[in-house]
Amino acid sequence: MSVIKIGVDAYGGDNAPEAVIEGALFALKNNYLSRDELVIIGNDLSNDFLESLKGVEVVPAKNLVTNDTKPTDVLKLEESSMYIGCKYLKEKKLDAFVSAGNTGALLASGTFIAGRLEGIKRPALVLALPSKSNKPKILVDAGANAEVKSEHFYDFAREGIAYAKFLDIEKPRVAILNIGSEEEKGSTLIKDAYNLLKGFSNLNFVGFVEAREIFDDTCDVIVTDGFTGNNVLKTIEGTAYFILHELKTAIKSGGLFTKLGALFLKGSLKSLINKIDYRSYGGTFFLGINGILVKAHGSSDAEAISNAIFVATKAAKFDLLSKIEL
Amino acid sequence: MSVIKIGVDAYGGDNAPEAVIEGALFALKNNYLSRDELVIIGNDLSNDFLESLKGVEVVPAKNLVTNDTKPTDVLKLEESSMYIGCKYLKEKKLDAFVSAGNTGALLASGTFIAGRLEGIKRPALVLALPSKSNKPKILVDAGANAEVKSEHFYDFAREGIAYAKFLDIEKPRVAILNIGSEEEKGSTLIKDAYNLLKGFSNLNFVGFVEAREIFDDTCDVIVTDGFTGNNVLKTIEGTAYFILHELKTAIKSGGLFTKLGALFLKGSLKSLINKIDYRSYGGTFFLGINGILVKAHGSSDAEAISNAIFVATKAAKFDLLSKIEL
Repeated sequence: MSVIKIGVDAYGGDNAPEAVIEGALFALKNNYLSRDELVIIGNDLSNDFLESLKGVEVVPAKNLVTNDTKPTDVLKLEESSMYIGCKYLKEKKLDAFVSAGNTGALLASGTFIAGRLEGIKRPALVLALPSKSNKPKILVDAGANAEVKSEHFYDFAREGIAYAKFLDIEKPRVAILNIGSEEEKGSTLIKDAYNLLKGFSNLNFVGFVEAREIFDDTCDVIVTDGFTGNNVLKTIEGTAYFILHELKTAIKSGGLFTKLGALFLKGSLKSLINKIDYRSYGGTFFLGINGILVKAHGSSDAEAISNAIFVATKAAKFDLLSKIEL
Repeated sequence: MSVIKIGVDAYGGDNAPEAVIEGALFALKNNYLSRDELVIIGNDLSNDFLESLKGVEVVPAKNLVTNDTKPTDVLKLEESSMYIGCKYLKEKKLDAFVSAGNTGALLASGTFIAGRLEGIKRPALVLALPSKSNKPKILVDAGANAEVKSEHFYDFAREGIAYAKFLDIEKPRVAILNIGSEEEKGSTLIKDAYNLLKGFSNLNFVGFVEAREIFDDTCDVIVTDGFTGNNVLKTIEGTAYFILHELKTAIKSGGLFTKLGALFLKGSLKSLINKIDYRSYGGTFFLGINGILVKAHGSSDAEAISNAIFVATKAAKFDLLSKIEL
């Protein structure tokens, strides 16, 4: 391919297709990518949208995948936008594919339609969390694999390292999430993974890390199984919203000075909320498959979609897949 | 026993024995318990301390368990305060035992020296988290069992229910932590546990709950394996400290109004920090063994120790163990 091609699933997410197309148009307007780089998967669009998308390739596809579609069922929905997007990844007609659709269905499509990279057994959800330093912290697997074997931690590590390099982290330090930092702590799975990763000199493996250090500068890539990773991610989200809720309650029931204080702090609080919202951090990648797959959040609005298109384009130009050591 | 007896490990924790004895004296001064109810395990104390403890039973014991002691090694340290405290639980010489010592060693002592309750295969760490409503949220297992089978979820549920009742929650709703709320989500272990708990009409089982709902009023007792539970707990801690760190940074780099705002909000922020600190919430119990075992945090100061003594006394008077359905 001479020109990179970024596909966008017109029918993915709660606000599709409107939010998706508006997001794509916003991305064009901001020069995140050019019209010949954008490919919209899905053609059942309003005339207004089709008019605005002049010069953009629109691939015919149907709106068939809902939130209730079972992961493996999508493999039979050959005319769906999700199926076609992943097929195009495999066929190298697309460098990257962005979808805000049903997560389970998207992971199945990525794994079985786009297909795994040779040398990778378990593709994983990779994402960046904020941290106390200015470097992001990479979490792998954030929820793709609920059950894993110790050998899969090697896949997760390499996927995480590639993403860390994409985010300008040189020589990323890799750690395994555990319930203690001593070598003898944790489950058999974790101990086996520890011994495995210790043996790879290419990994810059620094041992175990505890969840209370997630935001500290003790490592760059945290690897864990998808069940734990997803729970950690949702706990961060739940805790952040809980603290904001409690702060709001305290301010509401406080006196004049408390309310004045809140008013003065509004700007700081807002930038804080933005910082802890991991969704603003470069998107969630499903790494380890043929092609760059960006999972946008199901409730994405146009801005979130345009951000996802931005990171997908950037990752394609960076040639993210080539950074996964195979 | 006519008088309840609360044992305190003089040698447990980073600040032992000073913080422990001062905590015990504080508990006496505040009438959390009477002198004939308190039992200090450990006798190598200063004369000043022994003088202040007049009327309190002091059991001879040695300071042998360190942070480096391996869990099973404590079973051979028969003269250690931890061993003797757990032996006294088994022999009903104590109703409750409070220790801020080495967690792994304490869990091993509880399980193998005090012994499991008949009908319970897996004792677990049970603790209360804050929530958006005024009711606490119970988390089981918070870190005792890194590897579990589905049948152990039934133990965790009954342990959590007993603790919920102790915290005045009537008919506690039990949920299993999972990475989605649909029945087909999660690992085989989780699905098996779901099917098992569904079969017990005495549990008030409400299905799956996601980690982002931990602080919401959708259930009262959250059961999970000790690996996930411990990671969730430490993620809450890490996230809370991260948010406070970011807020402080924002205030520091802010202008006069920001600083004034922070000053006005100081009270609200302080009470918020207290609320999110789960350590202020009634202590961590190791439930399912013969006797009430309260695990105080390793870095406990005198106040934390006195709080742990307070909840241990309250739990003994409530007859917490009888609330575990066997």
